[in-house]
Amino acid sequence: MVDSPLPTLAELQPTGAFATRHIGPRPADVTRMLEAVGQPSLDALVDAAVPEVVRDRTPLAVPAAEGEAEVLAALRERAAANEVFTSMIGLGYSGTTTPAVIQRCILENPAWYTAYTPYQPEISQGRLEALINFQTVVADLTGLPVAGASMLDEATAAAEAMTLVRRAGRAKADSVFVVDADTLPQTLAVLQTRAEPLGITLHVADLSQGWPTDVPAAFGVLLAYPGASGAVRDHRALAEAARAAGAAVVVAADLLALTLLEAPGEWGADVACGTTQRFGVPMGYGGPHAGYLSVREGLARQLPGRLVGVSVDADGDVAYRLALQTREQHIRREKATSNICTAQVLLAVIAGAYAVYHGPEGLRSIAARTHRSATTLAGWLRGGGVDVVHEHFFDTVLAAVPGRADAVVAAAAGRRINLRRVDADHVAVACDETTTVATLRDVAAAFGVEPGGLDDATDALPAQLHRRSEYLTHPVFAAHRSETAMLRYLRSLSDKDLALDRTMIPLGSCTMKLNAATEMAAITWPEFAGLHPFAPVDQARGYAQLVDELCTGLAEITGYAAVSVQPNAGSQGEFAGLLAIRGYHHSRGDSQRDVCLIPSSAHGTNAASAVMAGMRVVVVACDDQGNVDVADLRAKVDQHADRLAALMITYPSTHGVFETAVSDICAAVHDAGGQVYVDGANLNALVGLARPGRFGSDVSHLNLHKTFCIPHGGGGPGVGPIGVAEHLVPFLPGHPLVETGGQGPAVSGAPFGSAGILPISWAYLRLMGPDGLRSATEHAILAANYVAARLREHYPVLYTGDQGLVAHECILDIRGITKATGVTNDDIAKRLVDYGFHAPTMSFPVNGTLMVEPTESEDLGELDRFVDAMVAIRGEIARVESGEWDVADNPLRNAPHTLAMLARDWDRPYSREVAVHPLPSLVGRSYLSPVRRIDGAYGDRNLVCSCPSPEAFEDVDPAPVSGDADPEGVGVTETAGVDREPVGQA
Amino acid sequence: MVDSPLPTLAELQPTGAFATRHIGPRPADVTRMLEAVGQPSLDALVDAAVPEVVRDRTPLAVPAAEGEAEVLAALRERAAANEVFTSMIGLGYSGTTTPAVIQRCILENPAWYTAYTPYQPEISQGRLEALINFQTVVADLTGLPVAGASMLDEATAAAEAMTLVRRAGRAKADSVFVVDADTLPQTLAVLQTRAEPLGITLHVADLSQGWPTDVPAAFGVLLAYPGASGAVRDHRALAEAARAAGAAVVVAADLLALTLLEAPGEWGADVACGTTQRFGVPMGYGGPHAGYLSVREGLARQLPGRLVGVSVDADGDVAYRLALQTREQHIRREKATSNICTAQVLLAVIAGAYAVYHGPEGLRSIAARTHRSATTLAGWLRGGGVDVVHEHFFDTVLAAVPGRADAVVAAAAGRRINLRRVDADHVAVACDETTTVATLRDVAAAFGVEPGGLDDATDALPAQLHRRSEYLTHPVFAAHRSETAMLRYLRSLSDKDLALDRTMIPLGSCTMKLNAATEMAAITWPEFAGLHPFAPVDQARGYAQLVDELCTGLAEITGYAAVSVQPNAGSQGEFAGLLAIRGYHHSRGDSQRDVCLIPSSAHGTNAASAVMAGMRVVVVACDDQGNVDVADLRAKVDQHADRLAALMITYPSTHGVFETAVSDICAAVHDAGGQVYVDGANLNALVGLARPGRFGSDVSHLNLHKTFCIPHGGGGPGVGPIGVAEHLVPFLPGHPLVETGGQGPAVSGAPFGSAGILPISWAYLRLMGPDGLRSATEHAILAANYVAARLREHYPVLYTGDQGLVAHECILDIRGITKATGVTNDDIAKRLVDYGFHAPTMSFPVNGTLMVEPTESEDLGELDRFVDAMVAIRGEIARVESGEWDVADNPLRNAPHTLAMLARDWDRPYSREVAVHPLPSLVGRSYLSPVRRIDGAYGDRNLVCSCPSPEAFEDVDPAPVSGDADPEGVGVTETAGVDREPVGQA
Repeated sequence: MVDSPLPTLAELQPTGAFATRHIGPRPADVTRMLEAVGQPSLDALVDAAVPEVVRDRTPLAVPAAEGEAEVLAALRERAAANEVFTSMIGLGYSGTTTPAVIQRCILENPAWYTAYTPYQPEISQGRLEALINFQTVVADLTGLPVAGASMLDEATAAAEAMTLVRRAGRAKADSVFVVDADTLPQTLAVLQTRAEPLGITLHVADLSQGWPTDVPAAFGVLLAYPGASGAVRDHRALAEAARAAGAAVVVAADLLALTLLEAPGEWGADVACGTTQRFGVPMGYGGPHAGYLSVREGLARQLPGRLVGVSVDADGDVAYRLALQTREQHIRREKATSNICTAQVLLAVIAGAYAVYHGPEGLRSIAARTHRSATTLAGWLRGGGVDVVHEHFFDTVLAAVPGRADAVVAAAAGRRINLRRVDADHVAVACDETTTVATLRDVAAAFGVEPGGLDDATDALPAQLHRRSEYLTHPVFAAHRSETAMLRYLRSLSDKDLALDRTMIPLGSCTMKLNAATEMAAITWPEFAGLHPFAPVDQARGYAQLVDELCTGLAEITGYAAVSVQPNAGSQGEFAGLLAIRGYHHSRGDSQRDVCLIPSSAHGTNAASAVMAGMRVVVVACDDQGNVDVADLRAKVDQHADRLAALMITYPSTHGVFETAVSDICAAVHDAGGQVYVDGANLNALVGLARPGRFGSDVSHLNLHKTFCIPHGGGGPGVGPIGVAEHLVPFLPGHPLVETGGQGPAVSGAPFGSAGILPISWAYLRLMGPDGLRSATEHAILAANYVAARLREHYPVLYTGDQGLVAHECILDIRGITKATGVTNDDIAKRLVDYGFHAPTMSFPVNGTLMVEPTESEDLGELDRFVDAMVAIRGEIARVESGEWDVADNPLRNAPHTLAMLARDWDRPYSREVAVHPLPSLVGRSYLSPVRRIDGAYGDRNLVCSCPSPEAFEDVDPAPVSGDADPEGVGVTETAGVDREPVGQA
Repeated sequence: MVDSPLPTLAELQPTGAFATRHIGPRPADVTRMLEAVGQPSLDALVDAAVPEVVRDRTPLAVPAAEGEAEVLAALRERAAANEVFTSMIGLGYSGTTTPAVIQRCILENPAWYTAYTPYQPEISQGRLEALINFQTVVADLTGLPVAGASMLDEATAAAEAMTLVRRAGRAKADSVFVVDADTLPQTLAVLQTRAEPLGITLHVADLSQGWPTDVPAAFGVLLAYPGASGAVRDHRALAEAARAAGAAVVVAADLLALTLLEAPGEWGADVACGTTQRFGVPMGYGGPHAGYLSVREGLARQLPGRLVGVSVDADGDVAYRLALQTREQHIRREKATSNICTAQVLLAVIAGAYAVYHGPEGLRSIAARTHRSATTLAGWLRGGGVDVVHEHFFDTVLAAVPGRADAVVAAAAGRRINLRRVDADHVAVACDETTTVATLRDVAAAFGVEPGGLDDATDALPAQLHRRSEYLTHPVFAAHRSETAMLRYLRSLSDKDLALDRTMIPLGSCTMKLNAATEMAAITWPEFAGLHPFAPVDQARGYAQLVDELCTGLAEITGYAAVSVQPNAGSQGEFAGLLAIRGYHHSRGDSQRDVCLIPSSAHGTNAASAVMAGMRVVVVACDDQGNVDVADLRAKVDQHADRLAALMITYPSTHGVFETAVSDICAAVHDAGGQVYVDGANLNALVGLARPGRFGSDVSHLNLHKTFCIPHGGGGPGVGPIGVAEHLVPFLPGHPLVETGGQGPAVSGAPFGSAGILPISWAYLRLMGPDGLRSATEHAILAANYVAARLREHYPVLYTGDQGLVAHECILDIRGITKATGVTNDDIAKRLVDYGFHAPTMSFPVNGTLMVEPTESEDLGELDRFVDAMVAIRGEIARVESGEWDVADNPLRNAPHTLAMLARDWDRPYSREVAVHPLPSLVGRSYLSPVRRIDGAYGDRNLVCSCPSPEAFEDVDPAPVSGDADPEGVGVTETAGVDREPVGQA
């Protein structure tokens, strides 16, 4: 086996070793795959697939590949350059303890973090249950009955609340939104960003004296509860006055405080918003965290983002699903007023689990301890002659120290504690569950006062606002109090779901590739997880270096001049990118430029983002091949030339094709004075081969959770940075409190968005190096073409380029099959579960199709397993086609099959073995769907979106109900017949 | 809900919070449980259950409980007190990289680390497959066909090899064992320890000149390959000479070197031994790592420890199980010559996975790079005028630096590199897979030579020893090369198994309690994982502090004067404890004291340990209640008074009862001059309530993996420290290279045993504090009595104390049921799998029974779920009893049921629903056994213990084969009828 001499040490250096772990196929596999595709080499395939007009052969100037150990060492260096002081800054970000069992079993567990968005509810019951727990926490604590399955952060949640109440309001013409002056500064900034393009005027007012008399007709008001200053005010009279004035009441509330304070829903709020960060989610230098939004009865249909609801499966058993999936950008497109499409699922799951683990009494105890830390400190300060400004507060003590604020803050910093300098005369101190007595004593010392005892019993919450209602009374919040019970509960949930750790997730447009353990390692290190986003910059040097290096790398890859990581989802990136274009036009006096051209094949989010950015959407036609109809484009450009702001296109196209006309298209837009926005959703087909910034685009957002290996987390976190050409750099997002390098409006609450997970993408770039990154793209293109080639004789492949090749994904056209046999793409998707697979993307971008994106990370064995399953399914379809099986009773329509079905009597035209072991290789499989196919319409008609009672799982009437049982008026007509599968852009 | 005022901050300090997470039942549950038991309070129960004669009411003087965050912070302090230099010390411990996917998915995954020993093979197929991979790696690389499923470390593996060849040898009377002078010093020390009590004489010889002519008849020889000095010698002629002289050949070999060197089995070795540490297992300051042992054809039956073999299940499908389970202490008892009973499963799984992930070409590349690092350095040294002693070496360069060794070592230390000072004139430098070029340059600088290039091509392996045979040719070593594929493979394996993360594991004597995430967190920190056991002590101050604190705590808990953590399994602890007794007697001139009294109910390991310690076992009878027959004891004491060395008893007894006579028994032994050894297997019933060191015992071993929360890891690592009374302290284990505080013989290769996992137990003590520890014990006693009380009317509870109470476990007597119905305890155990449970301990300590130890960590919900299952099973038994179901065809006998059974035709007298959903609560369960009941005898008769070919899984003939197909002569008579379930002591 061995022939000496061995290679030399120089030859044996393990450069690029990680790429061989990230990329699935081995060299011998590549040969076989190329044979199937009919190309002589990978280079030849790429040359044939990628049009020369976009091809960029300059090697990527990113650092060379390093081994996993070296990259971890480099991350440790950057971590060490951060200094983790005890944060008492507050302002919406609090110290918290992630219970170790939750960190290990969720945040560090691929079963949770590699999962996709739960659009396929049957294989997502675990995280759907976790999310309904989250919704119940929010609904119970805010006292509002309907809560969504998380927002991107508190600031954007507030902005969504603003637009929600506007479109739900009686007086849609009103354009004023009143904002409590005690609102968090970053929330105010994002409200401003979102208000301006929509023609909303913010009226910031000190509301402590009641409803302002000088305000014109307002459609809503945002109240802070508690305020940024720490003050807890009794807003009840104010809320009444606002309502009387026709303004809806939005309350930005701290969920932990709500365990002790009367719920906003109990004193008249229409909407509540905020963050759940302090429910066990590390600060992470700003994110990701789950924001929340909850609404009163009657507003559920207005709720943006995802809402988990209860439905029934084909057996009539209770099952969860995303409710009202057809809302928002999915049905409204250019009429949408929110582009929200991702959520912060992983973080919402953690926050919900934190509440499950602590239970109501535990949360109350944490809140009490937090409050007592604050009141104890306040007592000491007062005792030492320091004036405490507010009589009523929850966790934050605002101290008046005339002329001494800088000195106090510096003294605290000397003890490794960050306080908040409010102004030269005031310092705020925010307590949280991690606050120790020793820290309080250090703070007292920083103020120059003597600490006293711990027996303070003065309550600083207004007596009339003491919470009297119960919360978290559902048994799930009492059942998992020991670590063993919690461990098993979390395992039982994740076992219900199919994630990347068990199967390929062949979702077109979603790029479900490897989320490597090394890439994930650093995010839970205290030096990255423990920083407050507004910590002094000299404590965040490691982050500054890492963000700078990441942005430099991403700019190099995309061909842009600069990158901002602030947008914390792809949708936010779109918005930020369009705002940059808008800012550019306005800066040149071209404020009339407000037309945004969008091809008809575009993702719905594009149009929604354009509307949010104050643009008018003009749709451009596509040809039979799904390519932009260049003639129509030119006509639209001519028609709107003076007002042309931008063209938004996706490249390669949403149809998975490298359009050759892209440069011409870009030129036409530029010639008319417009800007080109290339949606980066499909960047995984370009990295190392082509750069949008060099083939004609001015701005793109990237999806770090697609191309750059941040895991999907079951539906978030996403990160959607934008890259821009030189002339747009000044319009990158800024921030009211922290220098970001951009001067544009803030789009997220945190200056660097979800900074806490940027080490993942940073590590990916370092591990792969320039050759590995290019190679990944090449293998992604190869994998898609291999699947297309092998499946072409069984299913029509819908679009291909000039060379008969696809890009990095392919569309299988099921419409002919459906027409001929009655078997739908839904049947195929559900039947794939029986074969152990997650479904491809359904009906996007074309109804009645399946889009498959295998990515470079799947090895040939898994690709073949998938192809074999699809071929076998085609054989099953043939048996329906031939009449052997009834179209209403066959393994496809009855899929997915459950253990309960197998155990019961069986009177189907096929055997149980055909049901669960259609291929011999499936014998011994461990996964069975926990529920049968779920009835979407039932859930929408009977909207229940917090924890159902345990009894609900026993007796459910699956019979259709009449429309009048529908509390929301969600008519059957709106939901029936819509089989469109929303694909998360963000 | 809230009534002000809130508690004060003093009242809200979260002391002892962890205990409420560790302990399952809530206060209200305790009340219900006490009612069932018929006791008014927990105190009353404990007073009634624990005899006053042993009760110790002095509070434990251990540090007060701290919160999880505080304990992690304290661990970080200790970690920071360790300094992790690059280790080039070698001597059997090498730097290695644990692939991140393996660390995350095995070492940090409760599904792997909370599993029990795979005695129940049906629910252990995943780790059995992982272990057969390990065995295949060892067998292939050593060229010997039968390898066990891991040994405790290299040194003890060598000692086991020594005794193995002695008992297998033709000339059992020979008492000389020749040892290569180039053997690792710690191996030599352990060989010495093990040889002396057995009357074996070690003859240490320089074998480089051939077989020694001055040696008397030897039964075996140990050869080092490579040697401790780094030299690679051609032992072929020597092996031939040894065999000619009647000596069996044992080779201590480095598995990584064997990827390049001819396998020992190819040049005449009978046995190979060593460590697999450098296959991805961190050094961890000495352990735990998996040692290995492999043997030629014909010696399999002599192999100590566990051996995974291939068998078939009731469908005739291939399935894995522990082969030859009836060997060693389980059938031999006092004739045993090995007390091995635990293994290092978790580490063996990691080492096997490392080989699966890298494959043969990857391992060879790692070995080549390691070798090239060494040859490159050697070239530089020679070029700089430094003499390199050996012409042939693999990874270790022995440099002659007359008079300069200290200076070179110091210079290297200045660059944070540890070299090995061999003597004043020699320095050894060991390379490994982590060795970088930069490190080699630093080493050159430490020697004062100029580094050269990296193009060295001089091979330092003897040409005639270049490996030519293939290895790791099984497909599993080629199939999982991408991280995605590896991730899914590991998940698929763990999904086949039932561990604590899915169900209670109610194993009597095994104490399967919570292994908390916080306790587990530190073991993978580089500052604990990265230290070499022989690193300079000033680099291991954190470990020194942690070990000292842990020993102090354990001594306080057990009432002993001192504790040694060196024994790396309970069996090693027994041996070390008996050696201390032996040393004590010898030191007083009482060398004739060699009788060890052992009750008939004792665990087999006790007797085996006594034999190993050179003692004669005299069995003491037990009465009907399982208690020691005091009259018989006194008679035996009188009979052997002059020769009485020790009494070994377990307390509470192996029958789960607090014997009241224990103090009298101890006194009787002491009066006769004997020493009392209390086996600490059941310490979970004593902590905080009674201390062996105070009720009459002189020495005990503890099982940190039982009472002190180190996870069982699927069958190891175990840690078995011993506590001793003052007069035995001088006889605690010492070490040849590192000061341990003991002066006795070394029992393990590493000075502090499996130091790398001691942070787990340390954290447990800190988290619980004195009150929490006692409370855990009380709840453990309550749980056992609750189960006994609820099950008593359904199954007889075999033994109880004076008060009708059990200790921390209870025995359910199935013999009457078996006699009346034919349903066996095995049927019940397997049927429990269908109910989602791991079986209780079977037939220990009494044949035909089930022993249940629920531990304090199970909450009432899980206890009730178990009781309900047992009650339901009793109902099923009744249907057999009534004749409704045939004894050979009923849900019990056919258990566990698989998906394949359900999917096939069904002609059983009960329905599929009865098979898999016998209780409504089981609908929705996710676990099904992957195989049917496994045929043990088949596997023993057809011994296959490395990876079977993939085809093997297709066609297996389940028909019984005749004895002559048995390659090992393992007769049916030896295995048939033995249903004893071996319970790991260690």
